[in-house]
Amino acid sequence: MTDYTAPITDMEFVLNEIADLHGVSQLPGFEEATLDLVSAVLEESGRFSAEVLAPLNRIGDEQGSSWDAGEVRTPEGWLDAYRGFVEGGWNGLAFDAEHGGQGLPWLVATAVQEMWHSANMSFGLCPLLTQGAVHAIDLHGTAEQKATYLAKLVSGEWAGTMNLTESQAGSDLGALRTKAEPSGDHYLITGQKIFITYGEHDLTENIIHMVLARTPDAPPGVKGISMFIVPKFLVGADGALGERNDVRCVSIEEKLGIHGSPTAVMSYGDNGGAVGYLIGAENRGLEYMFTMMNLARHAVGVEGLAIAERAYQQAREYATTRVQGRAAGSREERVTIINHPDVRRMLMTMKSQIEAMRCLTYLVGAALDKSARHPDPGTRKQQSDLVELLMPIVKGWCTELGNEIAYLGVQIHGGMGFIEETGAAQHLRDARITTIYEGTTGIQAADLVGRKVLRDNGANAQAVIETMRESSAELGGLSGATFSQLKQRFDESVDGLAQATDWIVQAQSEDPRLPAAASMNYLQLWGTVAGAWQMARSACAAQRRLDAGVNNPDFYKAKLATADYYSGQILPKASSLLAAIVGGSRSVMGLEESQF
Amino acid sequence: MTDYTAPITDMEFVLNEIADLHGVSQLPGFEEATLDLVSAVLEESGRFSAEVLAPLNRIGDEQGSSWDAGEVRTPEGWLDAYRGFVEGGWNGLAFDAEHGGQGLPWLVATAVQEMWHSANMSFGLCPLLTQGAVHAIDLHGTAEQKATYLAKLVSGEWAGTMNLTESQAGSDLGALRTKAEPSGDHYLITGQKIFITYGEHDLTENIIHMVLARTPDAPPGVKGISMFIVPKFLVGADGALGERNDVRCVSIEEKLGIHGSPTAVMSYGDNGGAVGYLIGAENRGLEYMFTMMNLARHAVGVEGLAIAERAYQQAREYATTRVQGRAAGSREERVTIINHPDVRRMLMTMKSQIEAMRCLTYLVGAALDKSARHPDPGTRKQQSDLVELLMPIVKGWCTELGNEIAYLGVQIHGGMGFIEETGAAQHLRDARITTIYEGTTGIQAADLVGRKVLRDNGANAQAVIETMRESSAELGGLSGATFSQLKQRFDESVDGLAQATDWIVQAQSEDPRLPAAASMNYLQLWGTVAGAWQMARSACAAQRRLDAGVNNPDFYKAKLATADYYSGQILPKASSLLAAIVGGSRSVMGLEESQF
Repeated sequence: MTDYTAPITDMEFVLNEIADLHGVSQLPGFEEATLDLVSAVLEESGRFSAEVLAPLNRIGDEQGSSWDAGEVRTPEGWLDAYRGFVEGGWNGLAFDAEHGGQGLPWLVATAVQEMWHSANMSFGLCPLLTQGAVHAIDLHGTAEQKATYLAKLVSGEWAGTMNLTESQAGSDLGALRTKAEPSGDHYLITGQKIFITYGEHDLTENIIHMVLARTPDAPPGVKGISMFIVPKFLVGADGALGERNDVRCVSIEEKLGIHGSPTAVMSYGDNGGAVGYLIGAENRGLEYMFTMMNLARHAVGVEGLAIAERAYQQAREYATTRVQGRAAGSREERVTIINHPDVRRMLMTMKSQIEAMRCLTYLVGAALDKSARHPDPGTRKQQSDLVELLMPIVKGWCTELGNEIAYLGVQIHGGMGFIEETGAAQHLRDARITTIYEGTTGIQAADLVGRKVLRDNGANAQAVIETMRESSAELGGLSGATFSQLKQRFDESVDGLAQATDWIVQAQSEDPRLPAAASMNYLQLWGTVAGAWQMARSACAAQRRLDAGVNNPDFYKAKLATADYYSGQILPKASSLLAAIVGGSRSVMGLEESQF
Repeated sequence: MTDYTAPITDMEFVLNEIADLHGVSQLPGFEEATLDLVSAVLEESGRFSAEVLAPLNRIGDEQGSSWDAGEVRTPEGWLDAYRGFVEGGWNGLAFDAEHGGQGLPWLVATAVQEMWHSANMSFGLCPLLTQGAVHAIDLHGTAEQKATYLAKLVSGEWAGTMNLTESQAGSDLGALRTKAEPSGDHYLITGQKIFITYGEHDLTENIIHMVLARTPDAPPGVKGISMFIVPKFLVGADGALGERNDVRCVSIEEKLGIHGSPTAVMSYGDNGGAVGYLIGAENRGLEYMFTMMNLARHAVGVEGLAIAERAYQQAREYATTRVQGRAAGSREERVTIINHPDVRRMLMTMKSQIEAMRCLTYLVGAALDKSARHPDPGTRKQQSDLVELLMPIVKGWCTELGNEIAYLGVQIHGGMGFIEETGAAQHLRDARITTIYEGTTGIQAADLVGRKVLRDNGANAQAVIETMRESSAELGGLSGATFSQLKQRFDESVDGLAQATDWIVQAQSEDPRLPAAASMNYLQLWGTVAGAWQMARSACAAQRRLDAGVNNPDFYKAKLATADYYSGQILPKASSLLAAIVGGSRSVMGLEESQF
């Protein structure tokens, strides 16, 4: 088990050169987010992640959270760590100062969250869920609800959860059955929810559950879902904790990974009904869910990046210290395995794609800030459109890559990777949930094709593709064989993406199943090309810095090398994805069910 | 956890139509392997696998094997199952009747082994390792050694192990240090071995360890390795078990998967030296290893296929019973998830590649039989060349695919896939070792490029590629758009494979690191195109049967559909792999070690 070191130099490069931190810090309310302040935040967060959170990652995996008669105990040391987390003000980093937060941009929170999840993804899930509750109440709650819950949730003294899934209602929320009966100023909630992350735990004195349920006269399906605040302990007018609500944790799941994070089965109303308070209007719960979903999906995309970074750091450590075999074509001394080209290939595959993911997730983090706060409505709209299109890609592509990279991390360790003590396998196990929760990759692909492309006949998608061509022009402005090759390959892939987008739109009229059959390849094509886009921007920025003269040229030269690798080894996938979309989608439904 | 049903119809199709069971049963000594007998064997093996081995798979995962003071206890029920396995004569299926085996072709053993590993890979590893010991003694042992050990190993009353790895010597066997001092008619072995599969257990009364070690005057590196028989209990001249040898199991590993299979640290000679008997000549241990390696690598390739089949069966069961959401473009009743195109895509990706793997592994199984027994020396040579080239591909490609398919199996289950009780996650964890043991995929790729392609400047590779073109001609002889499209795509991929082979040969003279940097993409290209080759043969055979009139046309039509899917959705990867080889290999070594 190796340590974790926050890759602050890489993060600052991306914040400054790719994600326009400068522009974000000019947005109203973010004036204090100067480069100096952000650097200090990253340093301090890196220290906390490396020194406090990372050492608890393995303990969390080994011990797991444990259930006893409805109570859940988190692993050894987690409570102290959580207290330090709250005292450090980390929970409220990106929340409004009005509620006690630090009011920093989501872009900065993105980098900080990457650190938490690299250090200890199971731990990072607790504040991730609390974030969801804060956003729901902040966006849709009454003044009284805000006054009652926000300060404690923002500080982290209380935690929040999201209660969506029921055993018959997973991806299909329309099928949910939990009931909410009106009863005076509140509702009585009855039903069972499953897969509730941090549904019960000992880190905070209260837990605020956001619960989706149906009122008695609600229409069927997704149009009859309302959202309720259901606190574990009722909160008095003075803010003091009152009686225990009628909600209990029935059990927690035994899972493949994220053992530290309790995944609860929650039962509401075993004794007559849990007291719940409606958020906003009845039957608009799904709409509220969607307003929060972008942030949650972004955070899970960042988890994909984060677990990849952790797996990479561990594999790099092993590859630079493990001596085995001789260099290709040599009979000299044995060498560390990083000298073997195939090990080098795996590390390059990890590193280059991590860089691409970091650029894309941070870019979208900045777009979230700009879409919310930019003074120009046209810019807000354009940034919001960018977010809408890219969010399923950030979530779907980064989490699939997180799994692929954690897999390579195990492979680099050889036999040691299969031994749990090494720690490489934990990253693989932990990563496995990221393509499933907050909507499976298939759901992301359906969202991309259905809501984001087909609804406007590909107009927004083609607009983003045109934006990509600006980076191509920038590549064209730089001299040298590297840049002309990068440009040529990038242009081809962008053309292919435009072609695939046209195909998706046209296929819909042939057979509505066709875009769905192509959706995963289309999402992966977007991710692969968007990654190349970011690597092109990264290479251009690095060359600018090299031309300007820097005192650490090796760092910037490495950006050129990873962009070259991405372009030569990763981007070729784009043409095969295009071919599969255009030539293979009709074969997806080629069998009758009985022929499987 | 779903049941396992041996896919006998598919297996017989491949045995008869693809792998030339008829031709194999004509080989000297295999005359009894008639189609009828083989069918009976498959039925019986399928029953044993489904009824005895499969139900123990989950128990094995949950309980694992346990260590106590040097003794290892296998999970509940395994001892009874093993006894049934021995009594059924399964252990000796492919061994010579001379030693008590059933003398069936390796091709038939391939199908039977697929069943064992699908049903319970952890269990299947015990006979897999015993096989290795049988082959070593059979090929290189003295008459006395054969008389002493073979009958009991063939029957399965005793088990065998392979002791290669030491902590400093994994892929790099030249670094091993275990010593063998001559002492009368035997040697005294001292040293520690790690990662010894079934190094200690309670299934058999004796365990015969095959141990690589160095004699005092041995040259350094791989040329100074000898192979020894080190029985757990010494065996008297009368065959009775004598005293306990000086070898003990120090511990067993806590692993990501295959929990039922004990992975032991073995210590030799703590009390003066373990009695070991030299096999063959001193310093030729590595050569003996290689003679056994083809069979072992083939068996592990079959494990990749087998775990994929098991994961597929489980995912298919879930997809055809889990109701969630509505069909694309419909507001009708909720449907089972197999009706969603992206779920269908995942199942097709699993099924079509499983079929391709089964064809290739069985074809190579038949080639092993023909290379050993065909009366015509030219045919033996040609089949042996085929085996040499394809073996690293069978091992590397099928095991990587096994992981990919087990991954999709989890994904199809959504949140339930992450819960251990479901069982999908176990397949993913179990599969993870297959790309590591018996040589990592990187080692397979190095073997393919170094020993199998560069040594003869690609001559054998190009010869096999020419053989593929015969299947293209066969496709060309069939009418219809499906076959002309299959042919066109297949031809392109075969041309690409030939081009990549030329590139590998030429790149060697530019920089010996280049073929190594390209080796993994080259292996995957081979696997992908060889899979298409087999799917083309499968489609041609299915069409022949349809033309001839069959009573289950749906089965054969499904073969056309999966070949179409493979061609449209999987084979496009070939062009991106070629592009990565030709255009991206130089970027692999683009960073200095300090830049990672």
